[in-house]
Amino acid sequence: MSELDLSLYQVRTDLALEAVEMATELGSTPIEGVAKDVIEDQGITITRLHVQNALGSQAIGKMIGHYITIEVPELRNGDTNLQDRVATHMAKEFEQFLVRLNIAKDAKILIVGLGNWNVTPDALGPIVVENVMVTRHFFELMPNDVAPGYRPVSAVSPGVLGITGIESSEIVKGIVDQSKPDLVIAIDALASKSIERVNTTIQIADTGIHPGSGIGNKRKGLTFESLGIPTIAIGVPTVVYASTIVNNTIDLMRSHLAKQNGDNDKIFGLLNQMNEQERLMFVKEVLEPVGHNLLVTPKEIDEFIEDIGNIIASGLNAALHEAIDTNNVAAYTH
Amino acid sequence: MSELDLSLYQVRTDLALEAVEMATELGSTPIEGVAKDVIEDQGITITRLHVQNALGSQAIGKMIGHYITIEVPELRNGDTNLQDRVATHMAKEFEQFLVRLNIAKDAKILIVGLGNWNVTPDALGPIVVENVMVTRHFFELMPNDVAPGYRPVSAVSPGVLGITGIESSEIVKGIVDQSKPDLVIAIDALASKSIERVNTTIQIADTGIHPGSGIGNKRKGLTFESLGIPTIAIGVPTVVYASTIVNNTIDLMRSHLAKQNGDNDKIFGLLNQMNEQERLMFVKEVLEPVGHNLLVTPKEIDEFIEDIGNIIASGLNAALHEAIDTNNVAAYTH
Amino acid sequence: MSELDLSLYQVRTDLALEAVEMATELGSTPIEGVAKDVIEDQGITITRLHVQNALGSQAIGKMIGHYITIEVPELRNGDTNLQDRVATHMAKEFEQFLVRLNIAKDAKILIVGLGNWNVTPDALGPIVVENVMVTRHFFELMPNDVAPGYRPVSAVSPGVLGITGIESSEIVKGIVDQSKPDLVIAIDALASKSIERVNTTIQIADTGIHPGSGIGNKRKGLTFESLGIPTIAIGVPTVVYASTIVNNTIDLMRSHLAKQNGDNDKIFGLLNQMNEQERLMFVKEVLEPVGHNLLVTPKEIDEFIEDIGNIIASGLNAALHEAIDTNNVAAYTH
Amino acid sequence: MSELDLSLYQVRTDLALEAVEMATELGSTPIEGVAKDVIEDQGITITRLHVQNALGSQAIGKMIGHYITIEVPELRNGDTNLQDRVATHMAKEFEQFLVRLNIAKDAKILIVGLGNWNVTPDALGPIVVENVMVTRHFFELMPNDVAPGYRPVSAVSPGVLGITGIESSEIVKGIVDQSKPDLVIAIDALASKSIERVNTTIQIADTGIHPGSGIGNKRKGLTFESLGIPTIAIGVPTVVYASTIVNNTIDLMRSHLAKQNGDNDKIFGLLNQMNEQERLMFVKEVLEPVGHNLLVTPKEIDEFIEDIGNIIASGLNAALHEAIDTNNVAAYTH
Repeated sequence: MSELDLSLYQVRTDLALEAVEMATELGSTPIEGVAKDVIEDQGITITRLHVQNALGSQAIGKMIGHYITIEVPELRNGDTNLQDRVATHMAKEFEQFLVRLNIAKDAKILIVGLGNWNVTPDALGPIVVENVMVTRHFFELMPNDVAPGYRPVSAVSPGVLGITGIESSEIVKGIVDQSKPDLVIAIDALASKSIERVNTTIQIADTGIHPGSGIGNKRKGLTFESLGIPTIAIGVPTVVYASTIVNNTIDLMRSHLAKQNGDNDKIFGLLNQMNEQERLMFVKEVLEPVGHNLLVTPKEIDEFIEDIGNIIASGLNAALHEAIDTNNVAAYTH
Repeated sequence: MSELDLSLYQVRTDLALEAVEMATELGSTPIEGVAKDVIEDQGITITRLHVQNALGSQAIGKMIGHYITIEVPELRNGDTNLQDRVATHMAKEFEQFLVRLNIAKDAKILIVGLGNWNVTPDALGPIVVENVMVTRHFFELMPNDVAPGYRPVSAVSPGVLGITGIESSEIVKGIVDQSKPDLVIAIDALASKSIERVNTTIQIADTGIHPGSGIGNKRKGLTFESLGIPTIAIGVPTVVYASTIVNNTIDLMRSHLAKQNGDNDKIFGLLNQMNEQERLMFVKEVLEPVGHNLLVTPKEIDEFIEDIGNIIASGLNAALHEAIDTNNVAAYTH
Repeated sequence: MSELDLSLYQVRTDLALEAVEMATELGSTPIEGVAKDVIEDQGITITRLHVQNALGSQAIGKMIGHYITIEVPELRNGDTNLQDRVATHMAKEFEQFLVRLNIAKDAKILIVGLGNWNVTPDALGPIVVENVMVTRHFFELMPNDVAPGYRPVSAVSPGVLGITGIESSEIVKGIVDQSKPDLVIAIDALASKSIERVNTTIQIADTGIHPGSGIGNKRKGLTFESLGIPTIAIGVPTVVYASTIVNNTIDLMRSHLAKQNGDNDKIFGLLNQMNEQERLMFVKEVLEPVGHNLLVTPKEIDEFIEDIGNIIASGLNAALHEAIDTNNVAAYTH
Repeated sequence: MSELDLSLYQVRTDLALEAVEMATELGSTPIEGVAKDVIEDQGITITRLHVQNALGSQAIGKMIGHYITIEVPELRNGDTNLQDRVATHMAKEFEQFLVRLNIAKDAKILIVGLGNWNVTPDALGPIVVENVMVTRHFFELMPNDVAPGYRPVSAVSPGVLGITGIESSEIVKGIVDQSKPDLVIAIDALASKSIERVNTTIQIADTGIHPGSGIGNKRKGLTFESLGIPTIAIGVPTVVYASTIVNNTIDLMRSHLAKQNGDNDKIFGLLNQMNEQERLMFVKEVLEPVGHNLLVTPKEIDEFIEDIGNIIASGLNAALHEAIDTNNVAAYTH
């Protein structure tokens, strides 16, 4: 494989959890500077990662901060009870972020739905914005009439560069300067490196959104540094590169045969001796020149994105307003 | 009719042309301080109004400034040739505004699509934004590669208060401060007082958008004063109050019979002796308590709004970019 | 008014209730051959009309049969509790039709959503079809696995002549011949003659759909005669002619002033002495030549039609399947 | 690999061209009973296959008949000139089918758009139906007024089993019996086994649509046998199984290294000695139990499906009506 320039190819994942998995394969476990805590609840796996310092950050290529991943392999089956349980878990995890960031109960929130509403797998952010409960105008127009247990929440979909001609980060910065929220929550569709996480996984991170993350072309981030206020990112992988499907499958084939005591060196030849990153680079080297390294999404994306957008909107409604019970979150979305 | 308090009822129209018509009926012609110029071209009537001073402004209840109205009674018939001719006229009229406001050929433009994309007759602004040619990002990302004859154009749909929780004027102010255009063009759906102008009329005004105009609830305006840069408003009436349909029709009935030498006093009784405003107040007094004074729109609004949105996008493309020929404007919209 | 040829102008309403109102104004009350029964329940008025014979049919210009009208003036306010109550009432009334027509509990039903999905006020039928519970395929593919309390229900939207090139009645006839249901339920958007009934009224009739009814161009009907099986029509007025708004308002003005002991002859002149039909003809005579006699719909039609489509789907689910409780109908729609 | 039961796994492709490729890999070239003819035109490759007899049919697993495949690798780039050229080629190829099937110039055509309009990659058929020129109603309503050069064309989207409860083949049969066309053209989204053909390939076949083809669950076909009239199928692959992406890529990796004189046996081990079908079975065996063998589609599917739907509608308009020039097909679609 000497002809491959490793530095040219970066394995891209927007999920901290996958970054940890990749770092783990390459090196020792546990990774220094990364604390990990896993909770299981009947088909829902919640992984709390804390990237504690520069060492941890460098090891996995993610910013220092807290990352929650909610994995629900059955989420694509359309089970509404499961969906409600996921929304409730999400609300509870999200509340922890608010506490940790010292966001007061009456602090003002701006929800930002990133992505392109004309591209179904990129429309997660705008779908959440259309479904979340918006209250800021009641506080502005009739502050004495708002019931207790609510806080001012606003929500915008800034669009994408190709539609507006303006970086979405610039639009958000302008709206933040003008409307003066205390916290930004940015929703975005992500790329995963594994097909089973597509539309089944929610990540929450207090690091904001950094250049190059998300499935679109977000060259400028939404962070505390750029906006001047805390920024929590919520992301869902909705697409996967064809190259990572291939790589993932070769991995699955190897562990499948290993269980059957197959001689993987014999069956896979040198492929078996490459590490995951080397193999992925090889796959990309082959696919990209012939234009096959597309970002792909499941055929049923229209339904999946609608479902998961509603889960996030429900979870946010419950987490942001004390008056909304986490046991009945779905009633407050449209 | 003495029981009616005239001051309680204001005849609302967003069209300067209709304001002039109403003022004309009540008083003398011509109205002092309002210059008027009319051009006809095979089914297209262009009226250029200039509200020159406070006297004119007060007489018609509109700001000092220039107003162009393009009336095309046949526009609802779906004739694509006529649509192209309207776009070309609109482009030429619009260019006059740019010249009069001293907007340089390379000045940066922000197009703002006001209104609610979920309410068909209020979706004009967002439709124009989706169809107009956006170029600002090319100037930002590869300034040396942009072909001559283009200028930086960006476009946003800020949404409505009920969806975002933020006044659209605040959102636009934030984006203007951040992206620093030299001119704002704000597109909005309007209310007309006459059903035949619905979806057949385009108004261009250099006064910006003032509180209370448009069919939504825009309590704060988009003007030179609020944004700090010139603001041109483009509006199309897409709805009409039930009460104005009634009033309009009584008027038509009177002129119909007058032509037949009918005795209108005998046929219409006191109705014939009221002026238009008194009669409209009477109609509203009757309709509003029983909830019938709805804003209504033609049944075919989905198609009409799409057509007129494309005309405006085509007209703007031709007016804003020298490289786009006003004779072939349609090719540049989506 | 001698110059008007009365026979040229027909006052068009698709609602039997309005036909009775008009006949009542012209003649004596009660109308022979038409039995009428009215029930009130907190904001919901249900009128059961039975056109018993040719005499009644001729008097109101509607076929012999049963007509239920559910009027809910507050239905446009978006109150979900009220919506659920309307669905429940509709289900109960609909069950009466099934009993009266001797439709067995396991009889097969075909729901037909008439109208054009691209024209919002004409999209009622397709919206109901998308939201109703469809079960026929379970009975065909795994008849032993269907839970008790359900019956085979299928649903199609045949489209309109302008899109398909085929009369919707022909398409439905073909599907009926092939899939052999025992009953057709046809859903259609209607024209009302009064603006307050638009999107607030549901009519159910066991007469099927007759040529010329509905807001589109349905020149051939869906009836027992044409399909060979019983056909129940469900309709909602979603549009109104500009001319009927005017006429209705003049009527309202007259009763408004009559209450104030106004001298209507003095105020309205001869207008006061015309009957409703004469006046409407006069209004149409004036509006049509200038192209103002549009069918119009409320500005908020997108939301109204979605709401009422869901009510009808919920009501049908509860009426057609014993296993679905009329007290919890909403849970079974999408 | 002895544990794999080969008969359990069938490599599925809806493209005759891919079936030929697979048969070619397994056996000798040329395949007896299959004639093949290839034309190139600047980025467009047209392959005409004729499955001449039972021998050929068995060899590739496709019905006896003619299959045209138009491959345009650059079609996903949004180049409108290329799109117009493809539409023109499609029209010309389609005309050959009409001649070969003896379809008279005034024969009546029914276009059937199969698939689910709510699932973007399955919406090709309904999109074509919405965009094609429909004329049958003019011939029915005013036969003497139709300009020469047109023929009666109708078009329906029957929906899918999950929405209607009725097999789409039953619905089509009913409509055919009722409206009596001379030819059916059925449009459907397909599954490909290679990612580069997704949204870049159009197949036309005079065999109709057979059970199990298409991406939905079409268990009954649309064929001469079932409908009683000739049936031409037009299909576009819009999805691909994750398993076939993997398999395809391993193939590409092998030919990539073979060019570099790599020792594929050493690098790929036994993988190199399996034939394509064995390897695909292995991949599926691994992916399916963990639920990863999804049908996937490119992220940009919304735009791709709109573009290719318009190309097919334009091509059909030109092929079906003499009055429409193949050099200007685009003007007649919406």
